[in-house]
Amino acid sequence: MKALVYKGDGQCALEERPIPKIQDPTDAIVKVVYTTICGTDTHILHGDVPTCTPGRILGHEGVGIVHETGPGVAGFKKGDRVLINCITSCATCTYCRRGMYSHCVRGGWILGNTIDGTQAEYVRIPLADSGLHHAPPGVDEKALVMLSDAIPTGHECGVLNAKVQPGSTVAIVGAGPVGLAALLTSKLYSPSLIIVIDQDPSRLKVAQKFGAHHTINSAETSPEEAVLKLTDNIGCDAVLEAVGIAATLELAQDIVAPGGTIANVGVHGKSCSLKIEKLWSANISLTTRLVDTVTTPMLLRLCEAGTLRPGDLITHEFAFTDMVNAYTTFKAAAKHEALKVLITV
Amino acid sequence: MKALVYKGDGQCALEERPIPKIQDPTDAIVKVVYTTICGTDTHILHGDVPTCTPGRILGHEGVGIVHETGPGVAGFKKGDRVLINCITSCATCTYCRRGMYSHCVRGGWILGNTIDGTQAEYVRIPLADSGLHHAPPGVDEKALVMLSDAIPTGHECGVLNAKVQPGSTVAIVGAGPVGLAALLTSKLYSPSLIIVIDQDPSRLKVAQKFGAHHTINSAETSPEEAVLKLTDNIGCDAVLEAVGIAATLELAQDIVAPGGTIANVGVHGKSCSLKIEKLWSANISLTTRLVDTVTTPMLLRLCEAGTLRPGDLITHEFAFTDMVNAYTTFKAAAKHEALKVLITV
Repeated sequence: MKALVYKGDGQCALEERPIPKIQDPTDAIVKVVYTTICGTDTHILHGDVPTCTPGRILGHEGVGIVHETGPGVAGFKKGDRVLINCITSCATCTYCRRGMYSHCVRGGWILGNTIDGTQAEYVRIPLADSGLHHAPPGVDEKALVMLSDAIPTGHECGVLNAKVQPGSTVAIVGAGPVGLAALLTSKLYSPSLIIVIDQDPSRLKVAQKFGAHHTINSAETSPEEAVLKLTDNIGCDAVLEAVGIAATLELAQDIVAPGGTIANVGVHGKSCSLKIEKLWSANISLTTRLVDTVTTPMLLRLCEAGTLRPGDLITHEFAFTDMVNAYTTFKAAAKHEALKVLITV
Repeated sequence: MKALVYKGDGQCALEERPIPKIQDPTDAIVKVVYTTICGTDTHILHGDVPTCTPGRILGHEGVGIVHETGPGVAGFKKGDRVLINCITSCATCTYCRRGMYSHCVRGGWILGNTIDGTQAEYVRIPLADSGLHHAPPGVDEKALVMLSDAIPTGHECGVLNAKVQPGSTVAIVGAGPVGLAALLTSKLYSPSLIIVIDQDPSRLKVAQKFGAHHTINSAETSPEEAVLKLTDNIGCDAVLEAVGIAATLELAQDIVAPGGTIANVGVHGKSCSLKIEKLWSANISLTTRLVDTVTTPMLLRLCEAGTLRPGDLITHEFAFTDMVNAYTTFKAAAKHEALKVLITV
C-alpha cells in the first residue's frame, strides 16, 4: 500500500509499505477513504514531537471501511463505515474511567505518533471498540473527518474547558481550524457574545460567516483594548487560546473577566509568563487538555441532526497521490486561505 | 478610641481616633473584642497594596459586639455578639449573585484597605447584614476570629478551588496560617493523602499534628522528587500554593497529576513562569481566588458541631496596647514559632 512517511528533518514522502496486520485480538484494520492533515502533523515535521520518530506513517484523522477485525472486537465488522478517533483508549484504566481517554495507560494519542497512522491506504486501529465510531447514515463522510480531532478538540479543550454557557461572553484567540471548531461548537451553548481574534483577514471573514459577533485583526489594532471596549472594560467570561504561542496565552490573561476561564487549546513548545501578580485575586481558572473525544458520540448526533456542519472547515481537496502537495498547501495556509485540507485515499 | 494606624514606610502605630459613626443606613458600628493580624497586613506595611494609603486603620478580622446599627440593618441589633467578615458585600450585584462577594461592586476587600479596619476599639461595618455573622453560642470567640479570613481563605481559595474530594491526593505548599487552614478544611473532604511542604520544621510539626500524612522540608530535600516518590510518579490531584512566590507556584506545576488542579492561595507581587510546554496536554486547571466568604455560615456550623477547631491556629496572645509588638512577633513568625496572634481589644 501507499503511505505518507515522516522522514525527519522537516520532510515526509509517499512510500510503499505492507498492509498492516491484526496484532492483538482487539485490533481492527481499516481501509482509509478520507484523511486530513492536522497542525500537530506539521509540529512533528518541525521535530517538536520527539515521541514520533522518522519512518512513522503520519496521521490520526480519517474515515474508512472496516477491512478486518480481531476476535476481541465486539462492535464492528468487515464492511462497516467508520470514523477513526484520534485518541486510542482501553476504556477501563483509571484515566479512562474518569473520561480522560487522552491519558489512557494503553493508548492516548499514539496514532501517527508512536504507531503508524491514517495517512495511508490501510491503518491498524488498536482497541477498536473505543477507537472507532459507526459513521452515521446520511452524514457527508468528508465532513465527518473533522470529527476525528478538530471538532472534538475545539469543543472539549476549548468550549467545555472554558465553561461556555448561555449568556457567556467568549473570546477566541486564533481562527485556525481548531479555533473555528471552537466557534462552531460554542454556539451550541448560546453565548451572548463571541469575539474572534486573528491576524489573517481571510480567516476572520470565515469567523464572521460562522457566527462571530465581532472579529479583531490583532495585526491592525490592540486586541486587549478592543475586547475591553466591547465588554464594558470587564473582559470575557471564556477566553479560548487556539494558537499555541506565548504572546497569545499572555493576551488571554489580559482579556479574561473576573470569575472567567482561560482554556488553552494550542500546542505549546515554550513556557510563557503567568501574570499571577494581577490574577491571584481575580477568581479565574486556566485549563489545559489533550482532547479526550468523550463528546464525539454527542457531536455525531448533532451532525446527523444537521445542527453541526463540520464540512464548512474544508477549503481544499487533494488526491492521496498528491499528499506532499497537500502538506505544502496546509503549511502555507495563510497564502492559500486554507483551513482543513481533505485527502481522498 | 485607640487604633492601629498604617504610617507608610513599613511603619504602624497606636493612635487616638474618634469612634466611627453610622454613615449609611446599612452600616453597623461594632465594638471590637478580639482581632488578629493577617499576612496581607504585612504586605500593606511593605507597600505592596497601593490602594491602602498611610493614615488607614488596619485590620479586616475580628469578633465583637454590635454597638449601633443604621435603620437599614435588619439582622443585627445592639448587643449582638458578631463575627466580622473580611469581605464587604451588597449581596445583590451581578458578582454577589454569582457568589463572588470578593468582587462586589460596592465592597470586596475594603476593610483595613480603602476604609478603616478592625484593629481598633470600634469599627464601622458597611452593608452589615452580609458583613456580619451572629457568633454561634458555645464557640470560643477567640477561635472564631480565624473565621474572618484565614479559615475561609484556606477552604475556598485552596480546598474548594483545588476540588479536593474523597480519595484525592493533596499537596499543600506552605504551612503558614492559611496553608494550615487549608489542611484543616481539606480533611472535611476525606482525601486519601495530604502532603505538606515548607522550610520551617516547627510549622511542619504543626502540620503533622493537624493530620498531614507526610511532611517535606523543602530546605533539605527536593520536594518534587519527594512528592513523585509518594505518588507512584504521578503527582497530586490537588496542589495548593499557599506561599505567594514564583518558586512555589512553579513547583506546584511540577507536582500536579494529569487531570489535577493547582489552586493558588498565595498573594503574589510578581509574575512567574507558566510551564505550558509541559502542561498543555496534561488536562490540568490552575485557579485563583480572593476569598468570597460564601462558605463562612457552613464553617460556623462545623465550629459549633466541634468538627472544626480553628483555635488551634492561635499561638500567641497580646493585649491591644501591645499591638506594635504583636506585629513584630507576627513578622518574625519563624523565630517565634508564630502562626496566628490573637489580640484582645
